[in-house]
Amino acid sequence: MIVYFNGQYLEKSDVSISPDDRGFLFADGLYDVVHVYRGFLFRCAEHLDRLAHGLHEVRIHGCETSKLVPVAKRLLRENRLENGEATVYLQVTRGAAPRSHRFPAAGTPPTVYVEAKPFAPPLAERQAGAAGLVVNDERWGRCDIKTIGLLANTLAHEQARETGAFEAIFSKDGVLQEGSHSSIVFVKDGGLICPPLTRRILPSVTRHAVLTAAAREGIPIITRPCLETELADFEEVLMLGTAVEIVPLISINGTRIGDGKPGRIAKKLQLAFQELIEVERQQTEPQNTRDFADKVQN
Amino acid sequence: MIVYFNGQYLEKSDVSISPDDRGFLFADGLYDVVHVYRGFLFRCAEHLDRLAHGLHEVRIHGCETSKLVPVAKRLLRENRLENGEATVYLQVTRGAAPRSHRFPAAGTPPTVYVEAKPFAPPLAERQAGAAGLVVNDERWGRCDIKTIGLLANTLAHEQARETGAFEAIFSKDGVLQEGSHSSIVFVKDGGLICPPLTRRILPSVTRHAVLTAAAREGIPIITRPCLETELADFEEVLMLGTAVEIVPLISINGTRIGDGKPGRIAKKLQLAFQELIEVERQQTEPQNTRDFADKVQN
Repeated sequence: MIVYFNGQYLEKSDVSISPDDRGFLFADGLYDVVHVYRGFLFRCAEHLDRLAHGLHEVRIHGCETSKLVPVAKRLLRENRLENGEATVYLQVTRGAAPRSHRFPAAGTPPTVYVEAKPFAPPLAERQAGAAGLVVNDERWGRCDIKTIGLLANTLAHEQARETGAFEAIFSKDGVLQEGSHSSIVFVKDGGLICPPLTRRILPSVTRHAVLTAAAREGIPIITRPCLETELADFEEVLMLGTAVEIVPLISINGTRIGDGKPGRIAKKLQLAFQELIEVERQQTEPQNTRDFADKVQN
Repeated sequence: MIVYFNGQYLEKSDVSISPDDRGFLFADGLYDVVHVYRGFLFRCAEHLDRLAHGLHEVRIHGCETSKLVPVAKRLLRENRLENGEATVYLQVTRGAAPRSHRFPAAGTPPTVYVEAKPFAPPLAERQAGAAGLVVNDERWGRCDIKTIGLLANTLAHEQARETGAFEAIFSKDGVLQEGSHSSIVFVKDGGLICPPLTRRILPSVTRHAVLTAAAREGIPIITRPCLETELADFEEVLMLGTAVEIVPLISINGTRIGDGKPGRIAKKLQLAFQELIEVERQQTEPQNTRDFADKVQN
């Protein structure tokens, strides 16, 4: 696999992260993931804008995220990933410097790592639904930034998987927030209920796209905090994520949600989401990687 | 510099951390630091026991921490660090595996990295005192485990340093917890007040040693939560850490603590701490690295 590392395209096995990298020592870095459909990077600009905003928030300088678009496209080409589904993973850290809680000297370049790999969508879960597990939200105070400080997330997700659930749902003081690496929205009275975008929730690109699709379908949307104690009242619970897209959660903590089957809104939004991808792909077709790659190669 | 990496002793520049290392991707790892005085690893067993406990808590298996003692000693010898002060940094992560929020397959070996380097103690701050800055505690819920998820810590420390302070002090809902990489204790009515060891505080090896020294000196010790609003009432505030040992904080947020000079208890404990190191060194002399190294080399 060819990956991008600090300006170079390398075999992944040739990448050497320094033991002084602040990503390795301090979780001092951010990441993002883009879903690619036959060469089309869905909402790539939104992902990169979010990454740029996060880098600004934690004051990591020297990475112009828009320059990662051609990097992602080249990786898709070089790894022959333009015909199926793929994900592009991007990580930026504060660079390598002698270990100190202080920031490194000005001018220390950030570490930039990008890889593209094939993605096998969770078709079974999208169609049949999956289980969720509510866990206590132990994460730090800035979950609105997509940092690599994910130990609480991995511990929660592993715990969920070990109980047979597909995803963990963080609850902070009884208020449902989001999944370990997904967004969660709820359905009641035929409308969507979305938790407000506080510092405990990542502004999810997929959630934004799903809300766009929902609005087009005439589905009412309200934003308000959702409580653990309300779970039994929801008709549907939807897990949203860049990779998974939309997965209905048909049981949570062993209790059935709605009638225990993927609901009407989930199915409607899954279809609408595919249409949205197709519409946006056609709108950007002139800049499509495939075309560009075809031109270069022919 | 010779370092230890997964069973090998290498030039540091030859160490290659995988981009799939869970320390790099997820902050899925722990660390510890031991202070070395002329070859004597002060309270090494306590540091390694804490590391072992943390690894158990987050379920990272396959690293027997007691086996890192000879590793540390060899690094001190090979890097000729046995005659001055040094620190040994140890980091263990859940290993390298294709990126997934799930734990890697059973049997995936942890990544173990150890380095030893010279340490220049902050003599000026120990003698003259330093400033502190109270910052909002944004860290996750398990600060009692020494994870590498330190972004909140580095941001807080950098903020403190930029205001001219030596260390940040985390306050959670008005309750003072600990520094960004140190413990904090307070002095009132000539006695020490220590915040209770909740999940917001690392069980500090240095604090434990300082309390042992304080008890020997007949200094009263009580444990109770300390509030931000009490800062003006404290006679002294002491920053404690493996590397810094004991640094009096003579002003916090620009407000003088006590009479704005290192206090009686700080000075007493600094002396008592040096005595404690010497006593413990002599107790372990037969197992001392220096002796062993002398034998080997002579």
